Amino acid sequence: MGATFGRNLRMTIFGESHGKGIGLVLDGLPPGSAINEEFIREEMARRAPGQNLLSTQRKEADAFIIESGVFEGKAAGTPLCALIPNSDQHSKDYSILKNQMRPGHADYAGKIKYKGFNDYRGGGHFSGRLTAPLVFVGAVAKSILKEKGVVVGAHIARIGRVTDTLFNPLGETAERLQGLRRYILPVLDASRAPLMEAEVMAAREEKDSVGGVIEVMAIGVPPGIGEPFFDSLESRLSHALFSVPAVKGVEFGAGFGISALKGSEANDPMRFDGEQVITTKNNNGGITGGITNGMPVLFRVAIKPTPSISRPQQTVDLAAGEDAVLEITGRHDPCIVPRAVPVIEAVAAWTLLDMML
Amino acid sequence: MGATFGRNLRMTIFGESHGKGIGLVLDGLPPGSAINEEFIREEMARRAPGQNLLSTQRKEADAFIIESGVFEGKAAGTPLCALIPNSDQHSKDYSILKNQMRPGHADYAGKIKYKGFNDYRGGGHFSGRLTAPLVFVGAVAKSILKEKGVVVGAHIARIGRVTDTLFNPLGETAERLQGLRRYILPVLDASRAPLMEAEVMAAREEKDSVGGVIEVMAIGVPPGIGEPFFDSLESRLSHALFSVPAVKGVEFGAGFGISALKGSEANDPMRFDGEQVITTKNNNGGITGGITNGMPVLFRVAIKPTPSISRPQQTVDLAAGEDAVLEITGRHDPCIVPRAVPVIEAVAAWTLLDMML
Amino acid sequence: MGATFGRNLRMTIFGESHGKGIGLVLDGLPPGSAINEEFIREEMARRAPGQNLLSTQRKEADAFIIESGVFEGKAAGTPLCALIPNSDQHSKDYSILKNQMRPGHADYAGKIKYKGFNDYRGGGHFSGRLTAPLVFVGAVAKSILKEKGVVVGAHIARIGRVTDTLFNPLGETAERLQGLRRYILPVLDASRAPLMEAEVMAAREEKDSVGGVIEVMAIGVPPGIGEPFFDSLESRLSHALFSVPAVKGVEFGAGFGISALKGSEANDPMRFDGEQVITTKNNNGGITGGITNGMPVLFRVAIKPTPSISRPQQTVDLAAGEDAVLEITGRHDPCIVPRAVPVIEAVAAWTLLDMML
Amino acid sequence: MGATFGRNLRMTIFGESHGKGIGLVLDGLPPGSAINEEFIREEMARRAPGQNLLSTQRKEADAFIIESGVFEGKAAGTPLCALIPNSDQHSKDYSILKNQMRPGHADYAGKIKYKGFNDYRGGGHFSGRLTAPLVFVGAVAKSILKEKGVVVGAHIARIGRVTDTLFNPLGETAERLQGLRRYILPVLDASRAPLMEAEVMAAREEKDSVGGVIEVMAIGVPPGIGEPFFDSLESRLSHALFSVPAVKGVEFGAGFGISALKGSEANDPMRFDGEQVITTKNNNGGITGGITNGMPVLFRVAIKPTPSISRPQQTVDLAAGEDAVLEITGRHDPCIVPRAVPVIEAVAAWTLLDMML
Repeated sequence: MGATFGRNLRMTIFGESHGKGIGLVLDGLPPGSAINEEFIREEMARRAPGQNLLSTQRKEADAFIIESGVFEGKAAGTPLCALIPNSDQHSKDYSILKNQMRPGHADYAGKIKYKGFNDYRGGGHFSGRLTAPLVFVGAVAKSILKEKGVVVGAHIARIGRVTDTLFNPLGETAERLQGLRRYILPVLDASRAPLMEAEVMAAREEKDSVGGVIEVMAIGVPPGIGEPFFDSLESRLSHALFSVPAVKGVEFGAGFGISALKGSEANDPMRFDGEQVITTKNNNGGITGGITNGMPVLFRVAIKPTPSISRPQQTVDLAAGEDAVLEITGRHDPCIVPRAVPVIEAVAAWTLLDMML
Repeated sequence: MGATFGRNLRMTIFGESHGKGIGLVLDGLPPGSAINEEFIREEMARRAPGQNLLSTQRKEADAFIIESGVFEGKAAGTPLCALIPNSDQHSKDYSILKNQMRPGHADYAGKIKYKGFNDYRGGGHFSGRLTAPLVFVGAVAKSILKEKGVVVGAHIARIGRVTDTLFNPLGETAERLQGLRRYILPVLDASRAPLMEAEVMAAREEKDSVGGVIEVMAIGVPPGIGEPFFDSLESRLSHALFSVPAVKGVEFGAGFGISALKGSEANDPMRFDGEQVITTKNNNGGITGGITNGMPVLFRVAIKPTPSISRPQQTVDLAAGEDAVLEITGRHDPCIVPRAVPVIEAVAAWTLLDMML
Repeated sequence: MGATFGRNLRMTIFGESHGKGIGLVLDGLPPGSAINEEFIREEMARRAPGQNLLSTQRKEADAFIIESGVFEGKAAGTPLCALIPNSDQHSKDYSILKNQMRPGHADYAGKIKYKGFNDYRGGGHFSGRLTAPLVFVGAVAKSILKEKGVVVGAHIARIGRVTDTLFNPLGETAERLQGLRRYILPVLDASRAPLMEAEVMAAREEKDSVGGVIEVMAIGVPPGIGEPFFDSLESRLSHALFSVPAVKGVEFGAGFGISALKGSEANDPMRFDGEQVITTKNNNGGITGGITNGMPVLFRVAIKPTPSISRPQQTVDLAAGEDAVLEITGRHDPCIVPRAVPVIEAVAAWTLLDMML
Repeated sequence: MGATFGRNLRMTIFGESHGKGIGLVLDGLPPGSAINEEFIREEMARRAPGQNLLSTQRKEADAFIIESGVFEGKAAGTPLCALIPNSDQHSKDYSILKNQMRPGHADYAGKIKYKGFNDYRGGGHFSGRLTAPLVFVGAVAKSILKEKGVVVGAHIARIGRVTDTLFNPLGETAERLQGLRRYILPVLDASRAPLMEAEVMAAREEKDSVGGVIEVMAIGVPPGIGEPFFDSLESRLSHALFSVPAVKGVEFGAGFGISALKGSEANDPMRFDGEQVITTKNNNGGITGGITNGMPVLFRVAIKPTPSISRPQQTVDLAAGEDAVLEITGRHDPCIVPRAVPVIEAVAAWTLLDMML
């Protein structure tokens, strides 16, 4: 009972990883918006698994079918439904996961919530596969935002113990932000990519996994976006971001670091730059009072290590009513951070557009 | 246009700091819920300013008048409106703030959003005073939660450079959680309180301010609370928390720290404790897949230093159309973290109850 | 749990007739909108009781206090709270109504819903007095609509057995629509007013009451207003209208009468009138497919006779657990239709503006 | 931007009549609810066209595919998506309807709203075909309601000039209500069916169409359902009902007729029937103060004649910018009332369940 989110560009999501398919309904697209299927496919390919050794070897085409809402290549203004049929579902036996709860996963919480009636195969509705519809919507949103002069980009600020440099909080060029999407491991300091790759491969070797941090910037967002009291831009962004599986933290601007600063350090001094009002620091991440101030919107998201690991783990067997040791077989991402980058970008683009419409 | 939030216990907030008054409407209270005005007053007193040297010397009674929704001491089930009249409004001249934007404040973003028509005096609708209604609602929610066996408590995990020890993620006693509210500087390690106080007093001396981190725990929350996909408990909590002025980060469980762990470290092993399923770690903060798993709900919130400082600051004068140096006069909190503690607790209590109803 | 309605101009309502006060919060007013307190007072006076023999002799000043959201005479853009304190509450003994349910009233349904905790005095939250906040909002909406060229007017199409002529479905002048508000019994055929008055006075004599029908027209509404599938303008208008106590029917255009027509009679032929597309009939009441087509929006609302009558009535005593005969004492409206006119107009104006913003 | 409705059982609808398909997402089904596909198919067959001479000769299988939310024959608790692929789309040339607006249809209003980008073929998103998803949801709702002891039934109260007798407002048996669904022309007085059929056939002969009135009763609805102030059961039912194409009026209980009664006639006297409180009349249609009182919920809906008729009609050609005479070719329903019966029932069942959950 939380399938729908958004105010002016409302998304409804559905599906389980091992049912017929997953998908979305998007309501509120301005009629006439170009729907660039090729760009959507490219964005979805960034998220799709099976493309390199850093991710799971499952192949999922993530092909989509637009059922409604697009007419002659443009948004009709009516609800757009896109279906992403499931494929490559190993007919493997999931029955052990019916009763043995995978640590770090939603298995137990979901079983309680849905009284045992939910589809547990492959995580069901909790599967990371449910982020594919988000990327679809994000791609549509990015195209519309681009026409409004807004560009969203993201890089991996950390994988395991390896960190990247951070965005210049005062802004990056559109070229740099857009260029990041060409890389499997998008980083600002190119020398960190091989180190991150090594970190992931080491985890894979150890039948373990690693997490990370993604940093996002949006430039060109006009001032005045955000709806106090309860629909601050930070509220809406974090709401959508924490819906993405594996997100455990969200911070804006200087974030948690701001708590150790003095007010004289944390405040962003203001000045005129021609006709425009700018700040000379951006510790607030482009948002004050929950409303954009015209500076780049900047935030970071903490991603936990993939909970699916091949090592034996201590858990419970609910049918047997006793403790158990579970070994999860199958193909897993040793690190979902690279595949999470387009998802987080997509959520940012969708939310920004939702609040700008 | 974001005055209302909540799904089953919906709050609408209104008011400006220098208008007639502020207040709230609370819709969805279970009829018959006891409304303990004395407890509400106590909670609101925790937030009220002017009580000690750590906070602003402004005195605000924060007395409330219940206009509706309570009959014979109990919730009628109909909308409860509580009014908090404004008082002690210095008749000082705020006119300089009409055009000179305070750095770190919502002044500029708000002026753009509201096209200059909003009440700028004392921050208007963006004033920290608007958190008083949250505390009112939180007090009502805490009483109802208590009957359901849920207890919420918070401590200051950091002020400036001084940190406290953290909650035991596997749980604290109800006594310890509830006992914290007796202190102006609620900490787990009593030796840190004087150090924090010194940090605040030093900032005051320097006409500066400091921020901090608040850690919150809720025990007794049943498993199964949270609404995938978009209304995960983390989504709803962060949404409400980021509505509170000065919050710049929210993290659950191990939070940003989880991003540096291996999956084998981050996953919370499960076992039976009698009939009950528990985890032997709590890196997920009691929430997996966006749904509670029965372990304590645990999160931390980053609070920025009070942006109002007495030092001269670089800013813009929108009327003059040129840069300016602003000296904010008046009484300010050198640190709002202590007064933010009951606010953050209140938001947690309200959101938890909203999702449990 | 239904205190809030509206999408872009969201209203939250609160209060009981015999509590401290009633009121509203209005969120989403365009900043800078003129708030004409004098006009609001006039509109509220149209609804207020005690002004003539046609209505109850209770005197209620319906004076309002704007608590927030208005700054220097204009909408600040932040939530507007208006409080309407209760007065002239007879200290009469309502205790009989605690257990004896008034037929035709919400007493029994409400007691079940609120488990007996609601304030039953004078109907509590179900009191017709709760329509005063609607009139407040309607007055604000009318002023804004007027600047957009939209005028809303209503007349009494029926009281008891006396009918008025109906609006010309192709349109009335703004002058005629606005002129109606000057009359206690607004009718199109002036000769019907005395007959209606007689109908009401006869009912009063007989300790009985009469109902009626109100017809509303809005001119100047641009085409394209309405949100399929579920937020057709008819859906939103009827939703708001059926919230008003005593409304039992809503019909648009030819309404129930259209069901007896042939398609060739019911369809509204279209033609150009200069550049503008018009229809030469208006059986659809200006709405096709749930969306305005530029013709006048036209609908009628059925109002039931005041359920409070002084005659003995058969009912139940819930405390005694047995049937009872109830005689309601006190001052009642023999006919609420005249006082309902400004309420229905207000709901129409609010809803139209909500969907046009 | 109105694709989603409902509070606890939220439906999102999508599709155009000549796109790939139409469908729905249903969020909030209690996990474990039986999903009886056979019953759903039966209900959808009641609405499907092409079954007899009373309706259009288009054949639409209305076969559905459940994409998600059902696991092992039961509701999983996660969003249920059902897809209804389009078929039997005549490849006829719709191009004339791109610019020539059909009177009585949404063509013109929709073209303005969607700026000409919407799919105009066959009415697109405004097509009556969009009511198929409603019937799907209604069938699911009816099964769940049945377990709660609630039965919904409907009959045709009028077609053109032929009327049926009305429901006994004090209640009908479950058998009678359920039995009505077996008939193409469900009536209470069997002698009226042939007359209604003759009325429809006459209209068909004349290349014309007829409308009608549908009366609905729900028995077994417990008292206490409805959410004042703005979510009265009448508000929610009418909101959903007016979303159905061709509905122009909704009235509860005695409806418009109540406006001509005296209060002493209109009020429903109450008495004990054993332990239960009942009323001895039911002019309020089981709803007082917007809340059910335990008596049968009773309402009527006015359906306009099918606007698609084969006769030449006066309209506009928007491309040519001049008046035109349009002859709509193709297969049309001379009367949609019989096919609307299961739709109206479905909306009632869905809304009642939504408010009972």
